[in-house]
Amino acid sequence: MSDPTRRRLHLNAFLMEAGHHEAAWRLPHSNPRADFDLRHWIELAQLAESAKFDSLFLADGPALIGTGEFRPPGQLEPLTLLTALSQATSRIGLIATVSSTYNEPYNLARRLASVDHVSGGRAGWNIVTSAGADEAANFGLVNRPDHAERYARADEFLHIAKALWDSWESEAVVADKTTGRYADPARLHRPDHRGTYFSVAGPLNVERPPQGYPLLVQAGSSEDGKDFAARHAEAIFTAHQTYERAAGFYADIKARTRAAGRDPDGVIVLPGIVPYIGSTEEEARALAKEFDELRVPEYGLRQLAAVFETEPSVFELDAPLPDFILARPKLEGTQSRSDLIIELAVREKLTVRQIISRLGGGRGHFEFIGTPEQVADTIIAWFEGGAADGFNIMAPALPSGLESFIEHVLPILRGKGLFREEYKGTTLREHYGLPVPPNQFHPEATRVSGG
Amino acid sequence: MSDPTRRRLHLNAFLMEAGHHEAAWRLPHSNPRADFDLRHWIELAQLAESAKFDSLFLADGPALIGTGEFRPPGQLEPLTLLTALSQATSRIGLIATVSSTYNEPYNLARRLASVDHVSGGRAGWNIVTSAGADEAANFGLVNRPDHAERYARADEFLHIAKALWDSWESEAVVADKTTGRYADPARLHRPDHRGTYFSVAGPLNVERPPQGYPLLVQAGSSEDGKDFAARHAEAIFTAHQTYERAAGFYADIKARTRAAGRDPDGVIVLPGIVPYIGSTEEEARALAKEFDELRVPEYGLRQLAAVFETEPSVFELDAPLPDFILARPKLEGTQSRSDLIIELAVREKLTVRQIISRLGGGRGHFEFIGTPEQVADTIIAWFEGGAADGFNIMAPALPSGLESFIEHVLPILRGKGLFREEYKGTTLREHYGLPVPPNQFHPEATRVSGG
Repeated sequence: MSDPTRRRLHLNAFLMEAGHHEAAWRLPHSNPRADFDLRHWIELAQLAESAKFDSLFLADGPALIGTGEFRPPGQLEPLTLLTALSQATSRIGLIATVSSTYNEPYNLARRLASVDHVSGGRAGWNIVTSAGADEAANFGLVNRPDHAERYARADEFLHIAKALWDSWESEAVVADKTTGRYADPARLHRPDHRGTYFSVAGPLNVERPPQGYPLLVQAGSSEDGKDFAARHAEAIFTAHQTYERAAGFYADIKARTRAAGRDPDGVIVLPGIVPYIGSTEEEARALAKEFDELRVPEYGLRQLAAVFETEPSVFELDAPLPDFILARPKLEGTQSRSDLIIELAVREKLTVRQIISRLGGGRGHFEFIGTPEQVADTIIAWFEGGAADGFNIMAPALPSGLESFIEHVLPILRGKGLFREEYKGTTLREHYGLPVPPNQFHPEATRVSGG
Repeated sequence: MSDPTRRRLHLNAFLMEAGHHEAAWRLPHSNPRADFDLRHWIELAQLAESAKFDSLFLADGPALIGTGEFRPPGQLEPLTLLTALSQATSRIGLIATVSSTYNEPYNLARRLASVDHVSGGRAGWNIVTSAGADEAANFGLVNRPDHAERYARADEFLHIAKALWDSWESEAVVADKTTGRYADPARLHRPDHRGTYFSVAGPLNVERPPQGYPLLVQAGSSEDGKDFAARHAEAIFTAHQTYERAAGFYADIKARTRAAGRDPDGVIVLPGIVPYIGSTEEEARALAKEFDELRVPEYGLRQLAAVFETEPSVFELDAPLPDFILARPKLEGTQSRSDLIIELAVREKLTVRQIISRLGGGRGHFEFIGTPEQVADTIIAWFEGGAADGFNIMAPALPSGLESFIEHVLPILRGKGLFREEYKGTTLREHYGLPVPPNQFHPEATRVSGG
């Protein structure tokens, strides 16, 4: 029936507390304590797995978010949560954000390898460089490292992590009970890295992960971020408000990947979409309105101020963005987010009130309000038009928004042969159609890993 | 029947790959790839839980152990493994070693809090300061911090970790759907720590752990280590070759705890025991001999050399320890281990061959060869004589040695009313009879937490 050579959509379930909309926790059926309730996360993970999503994803940062006054400000440490979820699922990929700026390569490479082992090859790492001042203050830094320096450190971090993951050849363990010889020391490699930011001897004390390396994911859209993605990323989460912007980004990242000497098909581009789904357009609009009316405007103002590193008082709710915001130079931390907001505000001539309403659902990701057919058509148009290899599904409320997508949109995509009916592989790399990277220390490997 | 006020034994199952004996992996029934086989660990955890052990424990260090030539050299990252095990068990406590020298307080406090959340209050942290040169080399350190400095850092680390765990008052989350008010910012506390080794703003982005703090465990037996334990530890793992030494340590640590202003009953002292159990003494001796004959002497020599920070070639197998070893001043890294070996060698007039044989089973812990009655009598004598509050059970082979202890020794202890038939509580603190520490930021708490 289905053509096995046909290009298929990849779908990631981006999970977040009671939903991506900032006021989701206030909905009548929401669990407002979802963040620390493991049953909530297990329910979501099993729901996404039952629908055969490629993966689920947890965003993160090592600091409390805001003041907590209007929105849940915390989250379980994501690799801990992924590990717990790995034991309640068997096939879905498990991706979490972890900072390369506030971790040591040996510890993090080991933890990621361990999650890959206990999950049977389902771990993915969304590499972030942690822009925030709140994060820096939790690690003794008064002056945050700048954008370029954070990416230089991340690049060296990845170089070390790959060498650590490669430090056990697959044939290293002999385990000969007769002779008492356990491993072949010549097949346990010491990276002995000495660089600008790190000195790490190795070898790692964990066997090579089942996937070789965990899937390497990236989400920064600055110039430094895109160059980093071209060198290292195998999947990219990205935020675009229009098809044109998404298509431009897609072409750009594939070209950069090719220029970096890698196969562009080895990088899966996944724009975010926040779908408000109704059986009619009117129902969908009513749903979006229900969310919008639950927002606390003060929260949105504070979030907007944080992105522009200013005070909420500089904004007037019913006026456009102030000129000094529109004219200011690029910011260190949140470049792509602030650029995206300015572009949206100018293109659609939005007031501050309208901007914070538009950002409330997906923090700058593409919100789409419509029927299941319209959601599916949009996804297909982006996918077939060269703007996406799949989507990062960001349900405004969880689990209800994910249930709605699975129940109403997925059957349409499946009916067109665009999304799997069953998992074929067992690892995250297999779901995304990506190979296990060769081991850089293995004598038979003639090239350095491109993954 | 049983007297509820009676003092009860606490038992911890110290798990290690295919067993604590260095050659355990060579036994016919052993799984030599146990380290990275999650099923092995789940089997052990469920076995210990079925026997109602207070806790299980994983030792660790952030470096590959030795060369791997004669013994499995790696291990899954222990908090990852504990998290996986938390989902396959429901009552047993889960303790892992993590270094305070090679972690950041914010990250580690968050991870431990998260393990406590996903396990329903069963997390314990064995705080180590990481003496090894191999470990230092994985974190860019050419000159290792010295003993006193590592403990000073650990002390500051604990101070910060406790403040971070306390940073959410239990009433902080309001979650009022009607008003949109989520948390009370006045009940989210910023430790704003600025000290010698760390600056950490906070608050933690994780709710206070179910246990308040994870159970704090310690195992160093140096003077610095014992003072640290007196200030912070709630359970202590310790190694003694004789009842007299164990009783002396017990009295010393309880006195130091009292001197530090804490209740000595709030510190559970757990010496290690490596039991070789046979239905007759002869059978037990034959079992111990079977292990001993599987040892590779070269491995033992290398281990001995590592403890004394010298080369294997300085030892002669059939001679006593060289004089320069006996006379040398105390070493930085492995003080208590090297002292213990010298004392054992001198007291029992052992040759190097005999020393490495004696160390092969439990790396200096108390090996006991005998019948179930003899093992039980020894445990009871130490417990009732004031040398132990319980034991750290270190089976020479796993699972067989733990099965043997459970099947043959536990019924004797239970017959005397010394060990629980069923769990009464659900948290690790409840199993050890220890309270949830008060929150230092809570207005009703009139004293600083002593835990």
